[in-house]
Amino acid sequence: MEVYLDNSATTRTLDRVAELMYQIMTKDYGNPSSMHTKGVEAERYIKEAKMTLAKILKVNEKEIYFTSGGTEADNWALMGAAYANRRGGRHIITTRIEHPAILQTMKALGEEGFEITYLPVDKYGNANLDALQRAIRPDTILVSMMHVNNEVGALEPVEEAGRLIKSMDRRILFHVDAVQSFGKFRIYPKKANIDMLSVSGHKIHGPKGTGFLYVNDAAKIRPILWGGGQQKGMRPGTENVPGIAGLAMAADVLYSHLEEDQEKLYELRSYFIREAQKIDRVILNGPRDREGAPHIVSLSVEGIRSEVLLHALEERGIYVSAGSACASRKHTISATLQSMGVAQELLDSTLRFSFSVFTTKEELDYTLRILKEIVPLLRRYTRR
Amino acid sequence: MEVYLDNSATTRTLDRVAELMYQIMTKDYGNPSSMHTKGVEAERYIKEAKMTLAKILKVNEKEIYFTSGGTEADNWALMGAAYANRRGGRHIITTRIEHPAILQTMKALGEEGFEITYLPVDKYGNANLDALQRAIRPDTILVSMMHVNNEVGALEPVEEAGRLIKSMDRRILFHVDAVQSFGKFRIYPKKANIDMLSVSGHKIHGPKGTGFLYVNDAAKIRPILWGGGQQKGMRPGTENVPGIAGLAMAADVLYSHLEEDQEKLYELRSYFIREAQKIDRVILNGPRDREGAPHIVSLSVEGIRSEVLLHALEERGIYVSAGSACASRKHTISATLQSMGVAQELLDSTLRFSFSVFTTKEELDYTLRILKEIVPLLRRYTRR
Repeated sequence: MEVYLDNSATTRTLDRVAELMYQIMTKDYGNPSSMHTKGVEAERYIKEAKMTLAKILKVNEKEIYFTSGGTEADNWALMGAAYANRRGGRHIITTRIEHPAILQTMKALGEEGFEITYLPVDKYGNANLDALQRAIRPDTILVSMMHVNNEVGALEPVEEAGRLIKSMDRRILFHVDAVQSFGKFRIYPKKANIDMLSVSGHKIHGPKGTGFLYVNDAAKIRPILWGGGQQKGMRPGTENVPGIAGLAMAADVLYSHLEEDQEKLYELRSYFIREAQKIDRVILNGPRDREGAPHIVSLSVEGIRSEVLLHALEERGIYVSAGSACASRKHTISATLQSMGVAQELLDSTLRFSFSVFTTKEELDYTLRILKEIVPLLRRYTRR
Repeated sequence: MEVYLDNSATTRTLDRVAELMYQIMTKDYGNPSSMHTKGVEAERYIKEAKMTLAKILKVNEKEIYFTSGGTEADNWALMGAAYANRRGGRHIITTRIEHPAILQTMKALGEEGFEITYLPVDKYGNANLDALQRAIRPDTILVSMMHVNNEVGALEPVEEAGRLIKSMDRRILFHVDAVQSFGKFRIYPKKANIDMLSVSGHKIHGPKGTGFLYVNDAAKIRPILWGGGQQKGMRPGTENVPGIAGLAMAADVLYSHLEEDQEKLYELRSYFIREAQKIDRVILNGPRDREGAPHIVSLSVEGIRSEVLLHALEERGIYVSAGSACASRKHTISATLQSMGVAQELLDSTLRFSFSVFTTKEELDYTLRILKEIVPLLRRYTRR
């Protein structure tokens, strides 16, 4: 049996998405900037993709900008907002548990004269809003907070944060990295006071190399790439038409039965957590039951190094992650788990199981059976 | 008959490239950063793509970095080199006829304290090397020159430029935008003293949203995007595995019969130019015969606005470009043609016909027949 439980790292592209892309690549391959029909046809795919995504977010289609992925969207949001608003101040706020696309960009901004405040999180991985309130200053220009943490599935209080930020200073831009939550939750940026929202295609059964940034029309940001006037001069380069159409189709499919999928995933998650915790010294990190995202389970298995357990599971056809897969294959200790106060001896014994809408109870039963079998064995035979 | 002569705007993706991508998207969809087999398999595609491209350029595979396209590669080369070397000086040299991805990035660098010198070109669109020699100063840190001009097909003297630059100051980095020449010419960066080389996938029958930057291992540049440690920390973001594999396959296919294709294209080009010039007041812009790129023909048709002729051709199934298609559909006067000294009254009467390896003599005969038919008609019935 093959059980892919690494869906927070990446997902399988939907067949119909890949088929659509095949057709666009080989038939409707025009450049949207071309003046002739082939260009107009290509541009139509982009317009339709914008309409699909704008409808899902309840925003205006002109507020959708396509990027090469979540990382570019995050970089653009932060650097674009920081440089466009630096006259208003140079203070930026984020949390300690963001994705490296945020944390490393913040570090780079820090080296260019911006000052970054990192908010602490509680033991479930939720950002502290009191700390946010205390952190906001007259020179604060930007707050960036992820919606769902990629390592433990914590659901961050973005709506409350948005209200708080705007109640204190309407000029502060609010960015949300929704890479792990888009396709899992309904998100309405206008209602939630979100000025910028990052999304990645390959996390939602769409193509790799695609993503988008929602930018509130009233928010002032500048481009980070320069060139031909594509996307209103905000993001140059010939549009990745097949990728854009594929991303929108994947989103459309997911949002057409979101609530059913969410319910199914929550049931699977609760079941998996309950059963896994029956194994001796297996500890859940992050949100319990329905307090977090429906598709991520972080478990520490005391006494076994994550890499050892990961490969033992792999031998049985079960694919999971040690911590997060997004920061390359290098083995680094998770800042998220540390910030949550996870015990030192568990940091290196943590696995992430991440589900998709295609995950079945049978797959989880198989995984649980294997875990129950190999965890005691590995504890007996491996020494740390 | 449908005749696509806008291949410098974008090309049809090869069937086998689209098939490979379909397979990777739906079967081998792992994240290269994942520790398990699915990650390792995905990473193998990237390694093989690097090997393929490195072999074509005769460089080391670790010197290939994948990007979201030519625009990102150009931006990265310029900004990455400028910011990494700003302590050595702030003077940069380029030409007046570069692609907007270069010219607009130069403009942005100009606003951030760098000083840019723009080299003039002759009537064929070739950059002036004497001007380059005179422009180089002790604080020059970077020279960027395109290999083939996208509007008229001029072949720039990059090898001579490389020799000249390095003979004057070995520390100056030399970047070449090879978006229009890769797949048409053999290019060896090491031999040509090129430190950085930009390539786009969709101009060579590969996928949109893909490209790469060759960076000489000895050249110091910094990233322009930040995040997970992918691509040795130089270009973060989950690698677009299907796109990368597709790009490499397209390059491999083109370079497996490059000389035959080049010869065929040169013959088509000469034939097309000769026949087109038999039409009254049709003027060739840029290189004659085999002095330029084999796939681009720029013609000015006196007395007819390019847009009018473009749409008249389109009605007969012939797709061409007015100037270049890469700068969005906005109608702007070509800086390339102006720099070449093309007469004022012809600037707005210029069309670009760009061929691919799939272009046939029959298609060109059809195009010539239609041109001979409609040019006199349009001259009679349209007023400028």
